[in-house]
Amino acid sequence: MKIALCQLNFTIADIIGNTNKIIDSIKTAKSQHVDLVVFSELSICAYPPDDLLDYPHFVESCQLALQDIVKASENISVIVGLPTFNYQEKGRKLYNSACVIQNQKVLKTINKTLLPTYDIFNEARYFEPNKQFNLVEINGIKIALTICEDLWSNMDDFNYEINPLEELKKLNPDLAINISASPFNKGKEIARLKILQDQAKNNKLTLVYVNQVGAHSDILFDGHSLVLNAEGQIIQQLPSFQEAINYFDFDLEQKQTIDLNQSSKIETLHQALVFGLKNYYDKMGFKKAVLGSSGGIDSALVQALASEAIGAENVLAVLMPSEFSSEGSVLDAQKLSENLGNPFQIVPISSIFNAFNRSLEPVFKDSPFNITEENIQARSRAILLMAISNKLGHILLNTSNKSEMSVGYTTLYGDMCGSLSVIGDLYKTEVYELCKHINKNKEIIPNSIINKAPSAELRPYQKDSDSLPEYEILDQILTHYIENQASKEQIITLGFESELVSRIIKMVNNNEFKRFQAPPILRVSSKAFGRGRIIPLVSKW
Amino acid sequence: MKIALCQLNFTIADIIGNTNKIIDSIKTAKSQHVDLVVFSELSICAYPPDDLLDYPHFVESCQLALQDIVKASENISVIVGLPTFNYQEKGRKLYNSACVIQNQKVLKTINKTLLPTYDIFNEARYFEPNKQFNLVEINGIKIALTICEDLWSNMDDFNYEINPLEELKKLNPDLAINISASPFNKGKEIARLKILQDQAKNNKLTLVYVNQVGAHSDILFDGHSLVLNAEGQIIQQLPSFQEAINYFDFDLEQKQTIDLNQSSKIETLHQALVFGLKNYYDKMGFKKAVLGSSGGIDSALVQALASEAIGAENVLAVLMPSEFSSEGSVLDAQKLSENLGNPFQIVPISSIFNAFNRSLEPVFKDSPFNITEENIQARSRAILLMAISNKLGHILLNTSNKSEMSVGYTTLYGDMCGSLSVIGDLYKTEVYELCKHINKNKEIIPNSIINKAPSAELRPYQKDSDSLPEYEILDQILTHYIENQASKEQIITLGFESELVSRIIKMVNNNEFKRFQAPPILRVSSKAFGRGRIIPLVSKW
Repeated sequence: MKIALCQLNFTIADIIGNTNKIIDSIKTAKSQHVDLVVFSELSICAYPPDDLLDYPHFVESCQLALQDIVKASENISVIVGLPTFNYQEKGRKLYNSACVIQNQKVLKTINKTLLPTYDIFNEARYFEPNKQFNLVEINGIKIALTICEDLWSNMDDFNYEINPLEELKKLNPDLAINISASPFNKGKEIARLKILQDQAKNNKLTLVYVNQVGAHSDILFDGHSLVLNAEGQIIQQLPSFQEAINYFDFDLEQKQTIDLNQSSKIETLHQALVFGLKNYYDKMGFKKAVLGSSGGIDSALVQALASEAIGAENVLAVLMPSEFSSEGSVLDAQKLSENLGNPFQIVPISSIFNAFNRSLEPVFKDSPFNITEENIQARSRAILLMAISNKLGHILLNTSNKSEMSVGYTTLYGDMCGSLSVIGDLYKTEVYELCKHINKNKEIIPNSIINKAPSAELRPYQKDSDSLPEYEILDQILTHYIENQASKEQIITLGFESELVSRIIKMVNNNEFKRFQAPPILRVSSKAFGRGRIIPLVSKW
Repeated sequence: MKIALCQLNFTIADIIGNTNKIIDSIKTAKSQHVDLVVFSELSICAYPPDDLLDYPHFVESCQLALQDIVKASENISVIVGLPTFNYQEKGRKLYNSACVIQNQKVLKTINKTLLPTYDIFNEARYFEPNKQFNLVEINGIKIALTICEDLWSNMDDFNYEINPLEELKKLNPDLAINISASPFNKGKEIARLKILQDQAKNNKLTLVYVNQVGAHSDILFDGHSLVLNAEGQIIQQLPSFQEAINYFDFDLEQKQTIDLNQSSKIETLHQALVFGLKNYYDKMGFKKAVLGSSGGIDSALVQALASEAIGAENVLAVLMPSEFSSEGSVLDAQKLSENLGNPFQIVPISSIFNAFNRSLEPVFKDSPFNITEENIQARSRAILLMAISNKLGHILLNTSNKSEMSVGYTTLYGDMCGSLSVIGDLYKTEVYELCKHINKNKEIIPNSIINKAPSAELRPYQKDSDSLPEYEILDQILTHYIENQASKEQIITLGFESELVSRIIKMVNNNEFKRFQAPPILRVSSKAFGRGRIIPLVSKW
């Protein structure tokens, strides 16, 4: 049996577009004499459709699309993912299903058993879990068909009560197939391989794994579909961060095993961010970006990534110096745009800043310069950027990093503005590392930007280190608190200074209100700010 | 057996504060010769603790607090709610528990069976469901103890597989007790009573129902705890939107039944909003509010509600006229502040607006006035308000309504700014209704504000009705689409004009990106924008 693994980039709710893509792939597969074409989880509507699932019309539209796919399945078998209705009297109203189609008939519908409900996953919000286990027979081959999380029964954090593949194994299948929408984060390829290998080995089954590829706003899906033999060795793999259709012949003996194809950690991060940015623009139909180019390292990195993702000529850098900007910063920012080939504009903010101060004089009287005036500058820049965005149709990119978003070293409605946060899941130390990586062959980001002491330049002689510890220390404390959910006491035990840890944790907790209004953030860690981290705004923690 | 129903206002994660409140109530109950004191769901940490539950230290802190409560239980019984660890090898790591304490010992721990995971509820994200059913015996009385959703097995939307009270009924209990954190929304008191009545009647059990009271940011808990007899009639009820401790003697025959205590719909809405506002300020430790007072009806309503919630002297109204503001608007806004007794400031924005336009001239050249310049005005006002907030420590209130947030008739980083959205879950027609209700005895909100045609006043002769249908029509279409999840076709079938429905739905869908960055909204409907409505930002719906 020749199987086509279709690792495709679907758009959420683009039911017609996705269905056409599926039908085109079936045609291609037919021309390659394929017996079975396999698509990823919820392929008809793309993953995750979120609360669109609450609209019955949305689910009905998926059913109609399925009929078109059924029609296109003459002389071939197809496995496709979609939401289906639960017609039982009790239980949630939907299933997360894999529909098995053969020669213009629906052969069987298999429902997902394990419904991930943690971090960015909300599946118990919509779906009823499967409770009965059956094999699917295609061309005489008995297949144990599961959906994504069904293979993740044993995790670091907790174990599910059931291991669906173990249940199916009792029915003596010949082959295991899993259709997935498994998101990317740093280190995920290895964690995922380990899970798949354990399942293949423990159940002594060849495993065909088809993952979704593509990004929407925050969540990235890297693809990297695989075929493992019954010993858990890789015998085929699809690329990361790109669409691909591979063919696997189950009847042929597969002697050759291969290693996991992996870029370096930093190059993978680089690819992920460019991929996320590009997908966002492509799927929204946007062409051009605008961003504030301060001469600092964060905006420099975003400018470089955006240039790579959508073309340097489409990225407009806006330099908005104030009386507190160093001459170096303006020159550095200009140099960066020249290196990258970006158009740029210089719009000084002094006259705007002065207009605000004059207007507020009757209210503020003689009160001294403080954070208020710093914020007025950051927010004046945001208005300028949004005005350019509105007038020219360029989409504003946010340039905040995870370290500053964690401690609130960022201005709400100021530098926190933007449609998409590109590096909001990168700690400052990762920002440095990635800039150096981008510069590895050539000085793209001026070294003067990388080497200068970080500063917001919102008052004279300001440096980040005035009020924050060195980023090497800060980022470690943040990782323990945010990623590892460690307590203050646990972090202190690891050797960090008690007063510092208390202060940092307090800053993180006190700034939830800012992050609540932040743009969507490209997610590259296991615990990004955004939908995967729900923290009360009013609490005494 | 004399039972104390403790309907208290807890603060999320204020484990020490909540525990002290619980212990104080136990002392009060002892002085009243009470046998059993009952607190609401997750009373030790307050509901909902969200992802703080992912911090083991958080759950451990709740266990330690429980020990203090156990010590305080000499010669009395207590039912208190808290998260506990699941020590089984499999399943989620926590339970949502009710701990039954008697005379300084933990008698039994009952876990929640039905874990709501829809709308604003995320319980499957954290908790393992209970699967075994046992009664609790206190002073010879056999009690069927359940937690909140456990009584909601049959809902309009779907039915759970199990009805926990039916399971417990098989064990012949004498009494049912349910501890809850059941949020408020319009009409909820009646829906909730219906559910409780059905459970009491069908299982022929007296039902003691103790609900949480209090608001945090978005979600309001109204309290309104109840005692129903085995015929489902009310024999005792606690007030809405206030703390209360009531006593119920289960041994005495309760002949007198009472009606559900209910204010009018509009007065309930009024109370809910004032309550939500007041709780937010109290729990955050804030004293003073600031808001933009445009002379329009939305800001007028928020100004009146805030004055009621935190005191008129603590609400600073800022009038920020531009060249497009009518003289009437400024006078109306002044009149409003005078009627309410609010301090106010006038800060014109013309010089700021001009400074932006001059600075942008080299970029925009001769391009005509459009939405860009409208947004610059709205955003300049936001900067002024945030500057006043930063300098004076007043907290900015958002004044957007649900109609304009639905269709995106609002400026991101402009009038969408604020710490809390007060009327973001009220359609414009409800805004009118509530203003008239507030004015029922006296003209508090000037009638000229209520009677003028709505306008953003961002360009000459602008009216909302230039680009939107009348609000009576708009709000109906929005309700069908947002609250009822109706499809375009279904709404058209109800008699609305086809092209209009398409245009409105498109506006709602295209403006998800704005709402994504909106402040938390006081939730008063069954489908508020915010955490209870997760819609993809990048989609083709």
